[in-house]
Amino acid sequence: MKRQWFKLPLHQLLHALHTGEATLPEIVASFYGRIAVRDEKVGAWQYLIDQEDYLAEYESRSEFYKASPLMGLPFAVKDVIDTADIPTTMGSAIHQDRIPDMDASCVTAMKAAGGILMGKTVTTEFAYFQAGKTSNPHDPERTPGGSSSGSAAAVADYMVPIAFGTQTAASVIRPASYCGCIGYVGSKNEFSLRNIQPLAQSLDSLGIISNDVLDTLLVRNILLHKSLSLAAPGTPQSYVFASFSGEALGEMQAPMLETLSACQQALLEQGHQCIAFPFSDEMAELTTLHAQIMAYEVARNLVYEQQQHETLSTHMQGLLSSGLALPYKEYIAALERADELKRSLLQWFDSQQVDFILAPAASGVAPYKTVGTGAPFMSRAWQLAGLPVVSLPLGYHQKMPMGLQLIGKPHQDDVLLSQALQLQQRFLGAGTVLAL
Amino acid sequence: MKRQWFKLPLHQLLHALHTGEATLPEIVASFYGRIAVRDEKVGAWQYLIDQEDYLAEYESRSEFYKASPLMGLPFAVKDVIDTADIPTTMGSAIHQDRIPDMDASCVTAMKAAGGILMGKTVTTEFAYFQAGKTSNPHDPERTPGGSSSGSAAAVADYMVPIAFGTQTAASVIRPASYCGCIGYVGSKNEFSLRNIQPLAQSLDSLGIISNDVLDTLLVRNILLHKSLSLAAPGTPQSYVFASFSGEALGEMQAPMLETLSACQQALLEQGHQCIAFPFSDEMAELTTLHAQIMAYEVARNLVYEQQQHETLSTHMQGLLSSGLALPYKEYIAALERADELKRSLLQWFDSQQVDFILAPAASGVAPYKTVGTGAPFMSRAWQLAGLPVVSLPLGYHQKMPMGLQLIGKPHQDDVLLSQALQLQQRFLGAGTVLAL
Repeated sequence: MKRQWFKLPLHQLLHALHTGEATLPEIVASFYGRIAVRDEKVGAWQYLIDQEDYLAEYESRSEFYKASPLMGLPFAVKDVIDTADIPTTMGSAIHQDRIPDMDASCVTAMKAAGGILMGKTVTTEFAYFQAGKTSNPHDPERTPGGSSSGSAAAVADYMVPIAFGTQTAASVIRPASYCGCIGYVGSKNEFSLRNIQPLAQSLDSLGIISNDVLDTLLVRNILLHKSLSLAAPGTPQSYVFASFSGEALGEMQAPMLETLSACQQALLEQGHQCIAFPFSDEMAELTTLHAQIMAYEVARNLVYEQQQHETLSTHMQGLLSSGLALPYKEYIAALERADELKRSLLQWFDSQQVDFILAPAASGVAPYKTVGTGAPFMSRAWQLAGLPVVSLPLGYHQKMPMGLQLIGKPHQDDVLLSQALQLQQRFLGAGTVLAL
Repeated sequence: MKRQWFKLPLHQLLHALHTGEATLPEIVASFYGRIAVRDEKVGAWQYLIDQEDYLAEYESRSEFYKASPLMGLPFAVKDVIDTADIPTTMGSAIHQDRIPDMDASCVTAMKAAGGILMGKTVTTEFAYFQAGKTSNPHDPERTPGGSSSGSAAAVADYMVPIAFGTQTAASVIRPASYCGCIGYVGSKNEFSLRNIQPLAQSLDSLGIISNDVLDTLLVRNILLHKSLSLAAPGTPQSYVFASFSGEALGEMQAPMLETLSACQQALLEQGHQCIAFPFSDEMAELTTLHAQIMAYEVARNLVYEQQQHETLSTHMQGLLSSGLALPYKEYIAALERADELKRSLLQWFDSQQVDFILAPAASGVAPYKTVGTGAPFMSRAWQLAGLPVVSLPLGYHQKMPMGLQLIGKPHQDDVLLSQALQLQQRFLGAGTVLAL
């Protein structure tokens, strides 16, 4: 019987290639086999490279790939991230024939490290609310979340081990939570956004979606030109964290709150320290400000598309209308107020020596598709503050996954990811020791 | 004898069109005539639309243009700003055949307002230091400055009334100073940068180059979807300004310092108040931090081009090497320190009720081309702090123009531009009353 290589995370696949346990074509065949069985139901792919073309690319430069960090393994990118000679539609009929002339920097970096682009994953329209064709891998009647719908569904359903997403409101963390994979959003300005189609430039971030925090760290290092030798995680440290239920921001489902409590309790039992989170009102205000700033900047960005108004979804038409209606002075006031609130939050992080905030990654399990792609209110505040976030699939309800998010200090992404890795090992199994 | 329409600023051309004093084809012919006479010496254009094609576009939609805010008048954009179906080379041999699939948002906004793209202006290689073919309009042996070389030269030489540039270090303000036109760089994140090729995303700004601050205001309003009815400037107010010679940052030429003194004296005589600028050391530190952050981010951005290392200039190779050599932690430390310094500066602005800092826009007149495109040290500090800047050609030496810059508070761009307009009217003549 064939081994199900597709179920392994990237770093374990690399290990199998290094030891000769598997060959690259075997692994690639395993992923394509999975896609053949599953994607009709999931619909994660906007554009999929032919398996023959994939392998032809590998064979044409096999010496390069064999010696490279990623050894020819596949990755996928959300369809707002430009790829040379492959359509990048932004989930919009306006751009259905658009073929960019260049790869985004993140794509180039992955290719230079020996990754092979397997295809483009479905995005909601312009990475906002209008859903694409993707279903939640755990229940075809439910949403995968948006806007990085296809990236989260493809990774969670083991069709590709790693995918890029983008987040402007909650577009990586929410789908990762709904689909049951690891979502990571870098600190504001952590990565190059060159040739990633912007939605709202004060807010846009690149995200990495994986099934293992070690894979996330690996890909992050590639993007940052950092050494690939990941140190095995050290002895667990004692963390100071604050728990935030999100009830100040919107309606939370009881199973999600129970997941948060259970995780908090387990961390306390492990000797970590939980302190109060004193900023519920401020986070609610940041959430409101985020929506204003986003609307204004989207209207500023999508100038071309406004000329084809009738081609836009009513979701997007509404966003553009509210953005165009917002006076410049109110936009600037929102930016300035957000900056004040961010400073208070960061001063609290420092004064209390907080390692991370622990919070639900979404309000609960994935809603049914008829309702939409879910609410983004559990991410807007951190996104506006530019904080790094990692979500882990730590809860289940009605056979649907639920994520908790760890929110860290700006540009302490490495620290936050190593803390997330320890939580992953503690709660999701210990089989994740990197051996490249 | 034909009127020299090319010498008029945009708002006066609009006035002439409104009154019927001129027709659009006459004005366009005047600009193309100027280009025919002058561009062989100046070399401002990377790509110029044929006059016939320009007029054919106008005639094909003349009703739209006649009713539009810009009435079919020409504008130009730096060749790092994407234009659909027209090459955008970024001043690099790597991209000499690159034809983008979309216009940048700023281009779309201008076209939607009835502007017609006349062509692309020469940029230095990737908007850094390697000079293109452009000469200073005032002396062909001298540099126009970089990196928005062609935009500044074309506008200063009356080949087009308005052009976009970009600034990451000093790439709008320095060429505007060397060529003798108005340079304006928006506050960080003031405008959409969609489909403008990024150099260093913490630092990149869009700039507008014109021969009249009223034109700058007009184009700014178009970019921000604001009403085009510019109020005539009110009664001059009394300003509080600080004068900064720049001597803490690098070697300044005596005529430039004399220009600064003369302007400062004239403002004092007008009743404005000058206070001390207490941050010379801090600005020197910001200048150093800027260079580090820029190097790191350029290396992060130009991933594709690093694979064609031998095609890059030695300037760019050196920048990439220093960026790749900078440890991530030092980059983050530089960002954090810059943020502290920026806050001190902003607190001082507020506590002293400062309207603007007055400073030389460059160290002196344009150097000879053999020396390079000039030093950016008079802009790096403000650029890193994200402040809006306007430069005005207030001095002359050896028949070469010199600019002074007004540096304002973030997102107070409107206020700063109205102050610049008053200085323009005071020092450069009063013939600039808008009558649309």
